[in-house]
Amino acid sequence: MTGARLKHYGWGREGEGMSAEERAFVLGRYHAKFGAGEFDTVTVPGLEELSLREPRVVPPASLTPFCTTERYDRAAHTYGKSYPDYVRAMLGDYDCAPDVVAYPRNESEISAVMDWAGSVGASLTPFGGGSTVCGGVEPQADGIKHKAAVTLDLRNLSNVVEVDPVSRAALIDAGTYGPSLENQLKPHRLTLRHFPQSFEYSTLGGWIATRSGGHFASLYTHIDDFVESLRVVTPVGVVETRRLPGSGAGPSPDRMFIGSEGILGVISRAWMRLQQRPKFRAGASVRFPTFFDAARAVRAVAQAGLYPSNCRILDPQEAFNTGASDGSSAIMVLAFESGDHPLDAWFKRALECCADHRGTPEPAEAGDAHLEGAAGIWRNAFIRMPYAREFLTPVAIINDTFETAITWDRFETFHDQVKAATERAILQATGVKGEVTCRFTHVYPDGPAPYFSFHARGRHGALLAQWKAIKDAASDALIAAGGTITHHHAVGRDHRPWYDRQRPQLFAAALRAAKRELDPRGMLNPGVLIDP
Amino acid sequence: MTGARLKHYGWGREGEGMSAEERAFVLGRYHAKFGAGEFDTVTVPGLEELSLREPRVVPPASLTPFCTTERYDRAAHTYGKSYPDYVRAMLGDYDCAPDVVAYPRNESEISAVMDWAGSVGASLTPFGGGSTVCGGVEPQADGIKHKAAVTLDLRNLSNVVEVDPVSRAALIDAGTYGPSLENQLKPHRLTLRHFPQSFEYSTLGGWIATRSGGHFASLYTHIDDFVESLRVVTPVGVVETRRLPGSGAGPSPDRMFIGSEGILGVISRAWMRLQQRPKFRAGASVRFPTFFDAARAVRAVAQAGLYPSNCRILDPQEAFNTGASDGSSAIMVLAFESGDHPLDAWFKRALECCADHRGTPEPAEAGDAHLEGAAGIWRNAFIRMPYAREFLTPVAIINDTFETAITWDRFETFHDQVKAATERAILQATGVKGEVTCRFTHVYPDGPAPYFSFHARGRHGALLAQWKAIKDAASDALIAAGGTITHHHAVGRDHRPWYDRQRPQLFAAALRAAKRELDPRGMLNPGVLIDP
Repeated sequence: MTGARLKHYGWGREGEGMSAEERAFVLGRYHAKFGAGEFDTVTVPGLEELSLREPRVVPPASLTPFCTTERYDRAAHTYGKSYPDYVRAMLGDYDCAPDVVAYPRNESEISAVMDWAGSVGASLTPFGGGSTVCGGVEPQADGIKHKAAVTLDLRNLSNVVEVDPVSRAALIDAGTYGPSLENQLKPHRLTLRHFPQSFEYSTLGGWIATRSGGHFASLYTHIDDFVESLRVVTPVGVVETRRLPGSGAGPSPDRMFIGSEGILGVISRAWMRLQQRPKFRAGASVRFPTFFDAARAVRAVAQAGLYPSNCRILDPQEAFNTGASDGSSAIMVLAFESGDHPLDAWFKRALECCADHRGTPEPAEAGDAHLEGAAGIWRNAFIRMPYAREFLTPVAIINDTFETAITWDRFETFHDQVKAATERAILQATGVKGEVTCRFTHVYPDGPAPYFSFHARGRHGALLAQWKAIKDAASDALIAAGGTITHHHAVGRDHRPWYDRQRPQLFAAALRAAKRELDPRGMLNPGVLIDP
Repeated sequence: MTGARLKHYGWGREGEGMSAEERAFVLGRYHAKFGAGEFDTVTVPGLEELSLREPRVVPPASLTPFCTTERYDRAAHTYGKSYPDYVRAMLGDYDCAPDVVAYPRNESEISAVMDWAGSVGASLTPFGGGSTVCGGVEPQADGIKHKAAVTLDLRNLSNVVEVDPVSRAALIDAGTYGPSLENQLKPHRLTLRHFPQSFEYSTLGGWIATRSGGHFASLYTHIDDFVESLRVVTPVGVVETRRLPGSGAGPSPDRMFIGSEGILGVISRAWMRLQQRPKFRAGASVRFPTFFDAARAVRAVAQAGLYPSNCRILDPQEAFNTGASDGSSAIMVLAFESGDHPLDAWFKRALECCADHRGTPEPAEAGDAHLEGAAGIWRNAFIRMPYAREFLTPVAIINDTFETAITWDRFETFHDQVKAATERAILQATGVKGEVTCRFTHVYPDGPAPYFSFHARGRHGALLAQWKAIKDAASDALIAAGGTITHHHAVGRDHRPWYDRQRPQLFAAALRAAKRELDPRGMLNPGVLIDP
């Protein structure tokens, strides 16, 4: 972590954000959707205007070298990046600010913070980059079970500790941010190639704890498959799994911690499987008359065993919103990459699958197709998108996304039901017709991971309730139609009611029992995934 | 299950076995290794000669339609197929025979057996095909904690219940044997293509419970990746996971049951991901001067992202033993297959990787290379191999295998250490020089899964102790050098001491806690993976 400090409200570092032109483009689209009148604008309170309670606990002298109760640190660790997080921050509601923020520099300091927090009855919230969009890092202190809230920010554990070029793997500290991780691997000509949308402002440990979805649209979709072994600090000791390319020795210990969202322990480092940097690329943007045509082509490519690194599709409205199309066609962003061999045979066959479903590649693209044309425009918009929420919330635009997965046999009905339910809920909640668009982020031989965006014109004073009505309706529809409440955004607290319906009850019982062993006080990220 | 009944001693059905020619070939190799004299031969007792205790419990009338205390059923469920299993059966030691064998026909009958077994203080051992080579199905009754032993054989749950051709998936009963499963899928032109060596005499539920390793040498190595969802009957209720192509909602519930070896519940059915039947193949046998040359070529192919369906290598002695070579070279069995597209580009690039490491393809092979030449000979020997143990044990030949996985950076040293330790142990335990050979069964970008075979001339009266001394030394070496105690043979009871050293202690604590929730009486397959 170098450069300006992270914003306490907004995406990225202080001083960063969309340019005036980018803002005008984004707002222009909303004006076109919701009418030409001015938007009511609320001013977001500055850091010094926030009213924070006195810290309920103060760390002992032994912890002060890496713990703080400073205003900035507490404010910057109060929220993640969800829509309701932005609204509450805009309203100056910092009631759940942590009392103390710890920045441990090694495992023994993690343990020391755990011991102290446990001894004073505080909850402990592990914090990577804080990019959660489902309430995964909100400090918990009800005054009864948890008398105070301590947040544990891992940013000081930020090294690539060891590289094994023969096996293509590296031991990496959990607090390493995406860009730093890749920069440290670069001299070894290796790469993790895990690029979630939050890449710049999220960490390896956060990716593992939340089963982050990354760069690869097929095959290696989640971070899960890149984890070779883990070290996890729990309140009762350290867990270290064995570094192995594969094993059949009992249920996988790694898989218990992957996706555990901080409730079982704090991931301190991991051996990660790496890739050779790509030397060969083949790709194109492919246009389809309809989204379902594009989806059928995706299914054909996924079931063909071609394993493209990118095989994302945008529905016509989503393509229009990001400037990638005029809204008359669906777009597939198709790409193959390899550090080893040319990809002509793979690419050619994938284009045949597309042609079978009325797909036409954009003409005249070179090997850099992933940076050009519709694909390039979409890619750029994708990276910049997280900056929009900080100025859309103050003008009462409700824009949010939710994502899921479903098998192919149910996909088309599923899509229509979820979209219709969300559209209905927007109209009911806001009185104004909104918009719901869909893309695929990841694909499997047995089904896609659809990703929905929605846009509504909200009203100041009612934003939280309006957002919740829409989110609830969408989530109800997802679960009723057989999907998962999250494919790669995690569960956190926002998704709990639907996760509870999706997850087998007896698995919850087993997970609670496991947590009681590893976290007997129930101090770690309480309320996420399970209740005690 | 149709045809003759399964042997109570030996592999497969009564009446099956190696031909006289095959036996002569196998025994000839052992005579060449261990001298030309006759082998001492012990006669294996017939079923009627066995002395079985009176059943300690008798099922109530409600269960008699699918439960039995017949001699054959009890004898045929006493052992798996490990070397010590064969020795004890040969010695007529049936002390651990189950008191009752249940053949439930549906989930409610599974639950009924669980309830009754729990009520009479019996242990319950789930039983698929009984092909375990690590003591995974041995009935447990110490007279104190477990007053009797009931074995639950799933063979009557044997249907492909539903096929989804769009998503390429099927809902399949857990007791379905390999050949029946493939036969039922055939009319749908789909296949699971999971072919462990035990394929003919093992079941889907057994594969899932033990993280079985299958047909695909790369990418989809274990059954794990083919599981879309599970139903598991536990003593406290049924767990059903949601059918999804992918999910990031918390730690995977499926992964807790995959590899749980019957200690958490009985898998009753699963939605499995299927493949199109292959239409295109490309393959060859490739010869290498040394095993390590072949291993380096495997690493190159695995790291190139080519995903061959077969990329197994045999060391020169292993190739000789199966008749696939004259012992002067190592062999790679390389194959690509696809239901979708020709594989020339993939195959060509893999051969280049081989050439970089002194590999020469066998000339003049056609698309059926996987059935011909060295590859074909090895494949045939591989399928027939399990039949050898039933006549080798009576002549005091100790032949066994063990398998593991290790990262590439450590592989060569690891191989030499494990091989040397096993050779030393054979000489010490038997006084006769033995033989240890190695092949790869599965490969990953970050390391191989080496599979060792060993051959020793034992002595009647000492076989169990001799085998154990060798197995202990080999396992000690595996664990000390950083490997896993099993890549796909599971843990069972035989691998427990080394699994206990490999597995993080706190994971064991979490798993024990999970088991207490799902199996409060601790009746399910006690002693496997963990103690209460």
